[in-house]
Amino acid sequence: PIELKAKITSIAKSFKKLGEDDPRRLTHSFKVGLALSLVSLLYYAKPLYDGFGVAGMWAVLTVVVVFEFTVGGTVSKCLNRGFATFLAGGLGIGADYFASLFGKKGEPIVLGILVFLLAAAATFSRFFPRMKARYDYGLLIFILTFSMVAVSGYRVDELVLLAHRRLCTIILGGATCMLISIFICPVWAGEDLHKAVASNLEKLATYLEGFGGVYFPSCKDEGTGVNSKDGNGNSLFQGYKSILNSKNIEESLANFARWEPGHGRFRLRHPWKHYLEIGALARQCAYNIEFINACSDSDIQASEEFKSKIEGPCSRISAECGKALKALATSMKTMTDPSSAKPNVENSKAAMKDLKFALKAASTENADFLAIVPAATVGSVLVEIAKCVEKISEAVH
Amino acid sequence: PIELKAKITSIAKSFKKLGEDDPRRLTHSFKVGLALSLVSLLYYAKPLYDGFGVAGMWAVLTVVVVFEFTVGGTVSKCLNRGFATFLAGGLGIGADYFASLFGKKGEPIVLGILVFLLAAAATFSRFFPRMKARYDYGLLIFILTFSMVAVSGYRVDELVLLAHRRLCTIILGGATCMLISIFICPVWAGEDLHKAVASNLEKLATYLEGFGGVYFPSCKDEGTGVNSKDGNGNSLFQGYKSILNSKNIEESLANFARWEPGHGRFRLRHPWKHYLEIGALARQCAYNIEFINACSDSDIQASEEFKSKIEGPCSRISAECGKALKALATSMKTMTDPSSAKPNVENSKAAMKDLKFALKAASTENADFLAIVPAATVGSVLVEIAKCVEKISEAVH
Repeated sequence: PIELKAKITSIAKSFKKLGEDDPRRLTHSFKVGLALSLVSLLYYAKPLYDGFGVAGMWAVLTVVVVFEFTVGGTVSKCLNRGFATFLAGGLGIGADYFASLFGKKGEPIVLGILVFLLAAAATFSRFFPRMKARYDYGLLIFILTFSMVAVSGYRVDELVLLAHRRLCTIILGGATCMLISIFICPVWAGEDLHKAVASNLEKLATYLEGFGGVYFPSCKDEGTGVNSKDGNGNSLFQGYKSILNSKNIEESLANFARWEPGHGRFRLRHPWKHYLEIGALARQCAYNIEFINACSDSDIQASEEFKSKIEGPCSRISAECGKALKALATSMKTMTDPSSAKPNVENSKAAMKDLKFALKAASTENADFLAIVPAATVGSVLVEIAKCVEKISEAVH
Repeated sequence: PIELKAKITSIAKSFKKLGEDDPRRLTHSFKVGLALSLVSLLYYAKPLYDGFGVAGMWAVLTVVVVFEFTVGGTVSKCLNRGFATFLAGGLGIGADYFASLFGKKGEPIVLGILVFLLAAAATFSRFFPRMKARYDYGLLIFILTFSMVAVSGYRVDELVLLAHRRLCTIILGGATCMLISIFICPVWAGEDLHKAVASNLEKLATYLEGFGGVYFPSCKDEGTGVNSKDGNGNSLFQGYKSILNSKNIEESLANFARWEPGHGRFRLRHPWKHYLEIGALARQCAYNIEFINACSDSDIQASEEFKSKIEGPCSRISAECGKALKALATSMKTMTDPSSAKPNVENSKAAMKDLKFALKAASTENADFLAIVPAATVGSVLVEIAKCVEKISEAVH
């Protein structure tokens, strides 16, 4: 019983944390509840029930299945469902009429063949990558509606009335979902994408700004970011890891964003593709950081002496890159001109040149070449990162 | 009209290619068609229709929604749907009974509140990452069934009979799907995961084996892989890029694989988690390769002279790593003992030592330090890759 109690409290805590991490989840849950309650009026209100009958069930079904977290997701599912139902319903009624020409014996056979062929063809076309990205749900509903209308047409007489009622209730349910998701605390996929890309840049910036302090020991005495290696600082340095696998999330958000009506500072046809490019560059940068991280965990360590020689330019490169990324992220967030990042990019370029000189100078003095290589490697990774940052700053424009 | 014709032929071609790339897609489409035809017998056959009536519709719906490409996907959706329907149906009937205690006036209000609360709670729990991975569909069906049963209970009198019929047809539809997907040309998610991980190792191996020939110019005269840089060779070298974003696919396959019954050489409770680990290490390796690729595209090139000095050990490291990976991939595929990769790993370790000596020797002779750094960087990346390969070989055991 004590264990059970502990378990329940831990579950309750994780529930609470889930809500605190993103309060929109809570409002989303209430929105779904609200939409369902509204739609069930089709059953409770006598005049509505007299009009639609048990077809009101389809409105309930539509709400549950169609309501997604983001506006874009909801709208795309609603439109997909609406059009697919309409099209497949029409085709199904046509198929039924066609099959009835073959007499009572032939009808089920013809219907069976038609359902088999159409279902197979539609299922196959769901494998198309392009179809899958945008119209997967529509195709599913198409198969569903067509087979249901065609098959039940064999037994039900007032097929057109039935189809008409269902379409109406589905449209009603879909419209309820769209209105609620757009007008009550909307969650825009486009805004999420915008924020996700900007925050990825920020995560990179945090890592790069802190990098000098962690990798070069002498910096540790300087004050800022001293103890950041352990404690909560560590989580800051792990932040970039989530960028490595951000591709799928960004792509699905961009996909939903295309369905959204213009809102806030985002016009219709906002350049969502652009965000994907910046996202890809940020991932590139994160791959490099991942490598640098592996290097500094490595057991072969560079000599402290050599490290201290290239320390200046190296930490300048990473710091300037970090600043540039931070400036770019802020300018993305506020949607202002990103030219404030330019001086930082120039500075990092200058630091790259310094690094070259420092390497040259160090090499003539130092004899133990092996001790130099790891640090030199870190230097060249930083150069690659700086190049990436430059590309990002161009892409943001 | 000519343009239209061209478009149609191009679409037909891409359809054909889709089928040729993976013929299982074609069989999957036919399997869906077959399942639908079978299930529509519930309507066509008089005795069955007398038993179930229009509830047969639910069997059609279940088949369309539940049938997935892999066995694991189908089974997990079927079981989720079955259990969720059963549970929610029971709860819904209970809620209806409870609400009826409040009289005809109070019933819709109580029902509305209950539906609102349960839907909101279930929607919220869908945000739990663990729930989302395994029971997302079940929760959706839970909300759906509960609200449908509870709401329609207000108007329908024979609620228990209705719920019973629906549950029966849903089980019928689900069973049809499971049987067809397991016994007719099954597509096992576990097998796909197995193959995907092994082929990722192979892609890495292909890159590493070819790397020496491309990066070090003098190798180009040796014969093998000479012209592989352009032409079809290029696509071989891009193969590893798909690994960078393989995480989601692998995770969903592993998720499905857990639902699958034992089959072929895979026992029940096969160590699917292990595959995810190997996959993660392969990704790590691919990140490093991505970096090396960026380096060799870079405009700062190492001096040819220095390159030729470290060429021997470097290309030996990459070749041995490639061979080791290939051996590991084959041993995974055939599920035999992977110890044949051991000598290659040992060789690559020896080559790493040689590389150290070569670097030391080269540094004393060479004055132009800057020209050395890029090549030395490549060398240390190779060392990192070799370490990764060693870890992979340990993980495969």
